[in-house]
Amino acid sequence: MLTHRYSARVSYSETDQMGFVHHSNYARFYENARWEMFRSMGINYAQIEEDGVLMPVVKMEARFIQALHYDEEYVIETQISKLPQSVLELAYIISTRERGIVHTAKVTLAFINKITQKACRPPVMIVQKLSTNL
Amino acid sequence: MLTHRYSARVSYSETDQMGFVHHSNYARFYENARWEMFRSMGINYAQIEEDGVLMPVVKMEARFIQALHYDEEYVIETQISKLPQSVLELAYIISTRERGIVHTAKVTLAFINKITQKACRPPVMIVQKLSTNL
Amino acid sequence: MLTHRYSARVSYSETDQMGFVHHSNYARFYENARWEMFRSMGINYAQIEEDGVLMPVVKMEARFIQALHYDEEYVIETQISKLPQSVLELAYIISTRERGIVHTAKVTLAFINKITQKACRPPVMIVQKLSTNL
Amino acid sequence: MLTHRYSARVSYSETDQMGFVHHSNYARFYENARWEMFRSMGINYAQIEEDGVLMPVVKMEARFIQALHYDEEYVIETQISKLPQSVLELAYIISTRERGIVHTAKVTLAFINKITQKACRPPVMIVQKLSTNL
Repeated sequence: MLTHRYSARVSYSETDQMGFVHHSNYARFYENARWEMFRSMGINYAQIEEDGVLMPVVKMEARFIQALHYDEEYVIETQISKLPQSVLELAYIISTRERGIVHTAKVTLAFINKITQKACRPPVMIVQKLSTNL
Repeated sequence: MLTHRYSARVSYSETDQMGFVHHSNYARFYENARWEMFRSMGINYAQIEEDGVLMPVVKMEARFIQALHYDEEYVIETQISKLPQSVLELAYIISTRERGIVHTAKVTLAFINKITQKACRPPVMIVQKLSTNL
Repeated sequence: MLTHRYSARVSYSETDQMGFVHHSNYARFYENARWEMFRSMGINYAQIEEDGVLMPVVKMEARFIQALHYDEEYVIETQISKLPQSVLELAYIISTRERGIVHTAKVTLAFINKITQKACRPPVMIVQKLSTNL
Repeated sequence: MLTHRYSARVSYSETDQMGFVHHSNYARFYENARWEMFRSMGINYAQIEEDGVLMPVVKMEARFIQALHYDEEYVIETQISKLPQSVLELAYIISTRERGIVHTAKVTLAFINKITQKACRPPVMIVQKLSTNL
């Protein structure tokens, strides 16, 4: 299994009037974490798009276990456990040092041809980098 | 089953450079739809919070079936099929007139005491209004 | 002077932990208001982009006079007082029925050729519609 | 003059369908930069709020000189040139290594008593830290 750990801090604008992170922000957390993971493996997502492949989210599941608060530091661990066939599946565990796991999620990305907007094979570059690291 | 239909239009800021709605926005769509549903039933969420009960999202599942584009009008149907015990479960179907269903989701809300931050019973006002309409 | 009034309600996700609308949301309010204004005049911004012209914001000034709270209804009045030359200038007044003016802003949009990314003339369609209504 | 430099990278969710950062995100960039500046000076904004003082934005001016693109790294320089009396004024310069200055802004924050929601004096902690560093 391929794992990557990425650390970030809650921004003020991510809170809502309940006093903790609004749930709509987590999708952005996963996204930032996976592009950091890709970057760390030498995969350049901007380049992938220029090469004509989009990777939209097609499925998402999230469990909000504990709230995250303004200025809190959290670690988001991204896991990939198998090579992409038609889709790429990622699992996430968000935790803080003091409170352990606060959130988990699964996200599935598809591969879409930018021009035809139809499903396509995963770019060779991604498969190669992932198979080297898995 | 209790259902509510709410119509909205995609804002420019909700798109990303793929040219369609960024997936992180859907959580806000569900949220707007459920407070519109509540409002239509005479439930005032602002009042519920003032009375000391928060309703955070604890679970969320989403399927992105087709993309939504800038300026497109969509209908979001919210469904509640049973009275809340410890949590309230909602289902969503987003569709456009031309393209049918583009997105589905399930969202689970908890009831939390604002002071203790612990789980509490659903406010009587919500249970009454829902049981009248279910 | 051309004016347009547009009514909206504060979403939960727009609040932050201060308990009122986070200041970063106002830019989206202006944007929604101006596309509603354009739509009401028969100008289709999606079409303008397809025709190859982008209209990015190049200048923005905002005064936050009073806070807006969750679920509050507000009116945003958009004003255009002269035809666009190289840029289009818009003024905004946001108010609520109970509390009067809560916010004012000025926003300047440029016209950019989508391919060259260089400044271009305003589309004839916009100039015509605006000159008819001004 | 007190200055602070903070480096960040454009997230995918910050882009819109024009293919660059949506203008509404810059207000969040300034916010993140000023709390990083404060943190670097030993000022804890979360603590300030707990002590009963809010610091809402009351004025904002921005110039969008060049676009920022997905995955680009940018530096945001925050400047404070005088001690706060009733308000705190900050200036921002955003630049990239390759393209120089892409954005400038001025933001004014007020000091508000959390309970009364009225203007109050700046917290002594802020004035002391700023006067040491100015």
